[in-house]
Amino acid sequence: MNTRKLNLLMDFYELTMANGYFKDGRHEDIAVFDVFFRSIPDHGGYAIFAGLEQIIDYIEHLSFDSKEIDYLRSMDIFEEGFLEYLKNFRFSSDLYAMKEGTPIFPKEPVIVCKGPIIECQLIETMLLLSFNHQSLIATKAARIVKAAQGRPILEFGARRAHGYDASIYGARAAYISGVYGTSNTYAGYIYDIPALGTMAHSYVQSYPSEFEAFRAYAMTYPDQAVLLVDTYQTLESGVPNAIRTHKEILEPLGYRLKGIRLDSGDLTYLSKCARKMLDEAGMTDTTITVSSSLDEYLIKELLHQGAKIDSFGVGERLVTARSEAVFGGVFKLAAIEMNGVLTPTIKISDNVDKTTVPAFKQVYRFYNEHCMMIADVLTLSDETIDPEQPYRLFDPHFPWKSKTIAGFQVEPLLQPIFKGGKRVYDLPSLEEIRAYSTKQKSYLWDEVTRLENPHRYYVDLSQKLWDIQQELISSHKNPKST
Amino acid sequence: MNTRKLNLLMDFYELTMANGYFKDGRHEDIAVFDVFFRSIPDHGGYAIFAGLEQIIDYIEHLSFDSKEIDYLRSMDIFEEGFLEYLKNFRFSSDLYAMKEGTPIFPKEPVIVCKGPIIECQLIETMLLLSFNHQSLIATKAARIVKAAQGRPILEFGARRAHGYDASIYGARAAYISGVYGTSNTYAGYIYDIPALGTMAHSYVQSYPSEFEAFRAYAMTYPDQAVLLVDTYQTLESGVPNAIRTHKEILEPLGYRLKGIRLDSGDLTYLSKCARKMLDEAGMTDTTITVSSSLDEYLIKELLHQGAKIDSFGVGERLVTARSEAVFGGVFKLAAIEMNGVLTPTIKISDNVDKTTVPAFKQVYRFYNEHCMMIADVLTLSDETIDPEQPYRLFDPHFPWKSKTIAGFQVEPLLQPIFKGGKRVYDLPSLEEIRAYSTKQKSYLWDEVTRLENPHRYYVDLSQKLWDIQQELISSHKNPKST
Repeated sequence: MNTRKLNLLMDFYELTMANGYFKDGRHEDIAVFDVFFRSIPDHGGYAIFAGLEQIIDYIEHLSFDSKEIDYLRSMDIFEEGFLEYLKNFRFSSDLYAMKEGTPIFPKEPVIVCKGPIIECQLIETMLLLSFNHQSLIATKAARIVKAAQGRPILEFGARRAHGYDASIYGARAAYISGVYGTSNTYAGYIYDIPALGTMAHSYVQSYPSEFEAFRAYAMTYPDQAVLLVDTYQTLESGVPNAIRTHKEILEPLGYRLKGIRLDSGDLTYLSKCARKMLDEAGMTDTTITVSSSLDEYLIKELLHQGAKIDSFGVGERLVTARSEAVFGGVFKLAAIEMNGVLTPTIKISDNVDKTTVPAFKQVYRFYNEHCMMIADVLTLSDETIDPEQPYRLFDPHFPWKSKTIAGFQVEPLLQPIFKGGKRVYDLPSLEEIRAYSTKQKSYLWDEVTRLENPHRYYVDLSQKLWDIQQELISSHKNPKST
Repeated sequence: MNTRKLNLLMDFYELTMANGYFKDGRHEDIAVFDVFFRSIPDHGGYAIFAGLEQIIDYIEHLSFDSKEIDYLRSMDIFEEGFLEYLKNFRFSSDLYAMKEGTPIFPKEPVIVCKGPIIECQLIETMLLLSFNHQSLIATKAARIVKAAQGRPILEFGARRAHGYDASIYGARAAYISGVYGTSNTYAGYIYDIPALGTMAHSYVQSYPSEFEAFRAYAMTYPDQAVLLVDTYQTLESGVPNAIRTHKEILEPLGYRLKGIRLDSGDLTYLSKCARKMLDEAGMTDTTITVSSSLDEYLIKELLHQGAKIDSFGVGERLVTARSEAVFGGVFKLAAIEMNGVLTPTIKISDNVDKTTVPAFKQVYRFYNEHCMMIADVLTLSDETIDPEQPYRLFDPHFPWKSKTIAGFQVEPLLQPIFKGGKRVYDLPSLEEIRAYSTKQKSYLWDEVTRLENPHRYYVDLSQKLWDIQQELISSHKNPKST
């Protein structure tokens, strides 16, 4: 990150606002900003948080060099004092976040930044960019992994990704959500994700015949050959040539054909026929991998139709999250120092769901006695919840819808990441994040994780927080000062 | 690029294939690969090619360091000789491409790589990644710019982009297609694209009242204040406070309010009311900018409804190309050296549109006497077309559909970029690419550029090329060797 010098990757308004705060002498006023999102892509029941490691890396290295400052100076709108401030910039705020891999839900703060308003404002774009991108892909990947019912998913999307980072961090986010490996060698190299792949149609075409291509490949990789069988005619040529390669080349050398791959056509029909042909040739252990613009919907449908598939290669529709390519995370002011007092703020919208939740907050996750997730509750940051006492949950829009629970476990989800600009959080490894995410997902009810029409998971407010929100709504309806 | 060391950003199968070619002693065989795409996003009539500069940069710096080689060695499947080859890798092939900014159409080669098959194969992913990403965004941006009918488009998408590169190269591609500026300060810094932006809702909320926020901002930027008027109630509070700021703060200082921005609500209704209020206050020169999940369809609809809008901020739906987030560029073998002779190859599919066009090719663009584009014709690379002679165009699927044209101009679109690994092409500036693209688009008929149900632009084959394709199809139907 530092070597790339992406310091100016920020929306320009952050600089105009920051310069304004500076000029007004308000830049040191303490503010609290929440990162949250409003709706789950693909009408899903949950999202997966990813991107925190890159956010931490960005914040730890954020500074401005003289060339960058000169560029800003050339615009002739920034105060010299503000440019001097940027020159000496060092992040000094507190940052709280959920752990990467956590299932997250609309309207709950996933990241909270508390510090001088000028600092919070300057990191807005990069926080959102990393959060939105990686959470989008992790969420999509979790759906795809679930649809495959335990069969490995191979992430194949680099060539259709939106730039280099989309392919790299996309592979990372997908791995957090349980894909088995990636075709992206670079992601394999830096993240130790299994790098996978065998051959393209061009490889087969480059030989005088399909069999000669298969033979050459099998002799190069006798113990792990996966042959692409659809360059010409799959059932008439591809599968028979794969079987011939097994019998004539591999078996005599003491190896067995590892697998075949289908990349086009009617995958249900072709996989069933290919399975039968392989089985009849005694190749019951030769696996069938398919690829071809797959996503969770097609995978579910293929399996429903009884397709004989052992693993799935998923490319463009995962790496771009094609069915919903936007993850709508936002960055909203929750509190601001007014006359020395941290004061909750609200943005009211006629669209009730767009009204923000004010104040510096914590998020508590409630589990039942079987460790299944019951609800998340937003509270004031200093509220505590005693699991020995019954707790009343209520719907923040319809408070008469309530239920009192007991015998629960509860944990705060927002962890301190930076305190006074110093990192206080040890970065988990990617494997640890992946394992944590898998475990957290196992605490979700099937009703929440299913692909179609999932239950809406409860995200409630504590009584104290609800009271503050109501009070702010009332006072804004009768604004004292416009 | 070099400093980022993205050398291993390649699909793993490129390495397994390359190692196979190497082991087989075939890695120096000359091959020709085409980059092309099959369908235009959003059912549009044309796409815009972008991403060439990044491809050139990648190729010029591609090499493998010892750490990368060690990583590959650790997998225990690569020949030591192949790893040695990678260690000494230097691109030595020829590369041809259309100019960035060129309108492109399905099935025509946009980039052609001719050289040792091992080299062509190793650059596949990065060629496709840059081509697909930037062409996707340039194509989407061209649609959005067209829909705005001359009103400036501001690219606002960084926070919803798929990673850092998506925001940076997305801004670049959008600029090629005519957006006016970007919110991405980094893109402004490195590409000299106008960087734009004013304030967020949080800025307004951070002051005790909306008017105090507006006053502070106007005093900081008296000659270029654009005030965000929808934090509270747009017509009851936001616009009146903007007018008050103009009257009480700016006018006395000799300035005028530059503009207001609407970011939510019914933009047609609000813009009409706001325009009326501003005009009645004598502020006819104060502009109205709107933003809020816009794309070409919404912009067209807003203007159709008579909304009073001077410019549009377009974020997530441009930077992610949300309506179709995948640009399906592919990389296909067109010819391969067999016994020392460059031999055309074909991949035949039951889906006629997926059957490839064989051979080492050129693309000629035909213009009529008014410089309007008539058709593109794929030919053998060494064919020439004499504009003094009549030329017969015919549909490659239905050859009886033909017409003979005369009095045309014709130009070859594929330019040499690398010859023998040496760059022979001077990189145009971003402004030059943008100007070229604008000019090229002006040569397209409205029937091709319209958003809905555009005409299909002709992409034909020369008689010689068509004959070769037909011959290969016939011989593959009766394969001699399977």
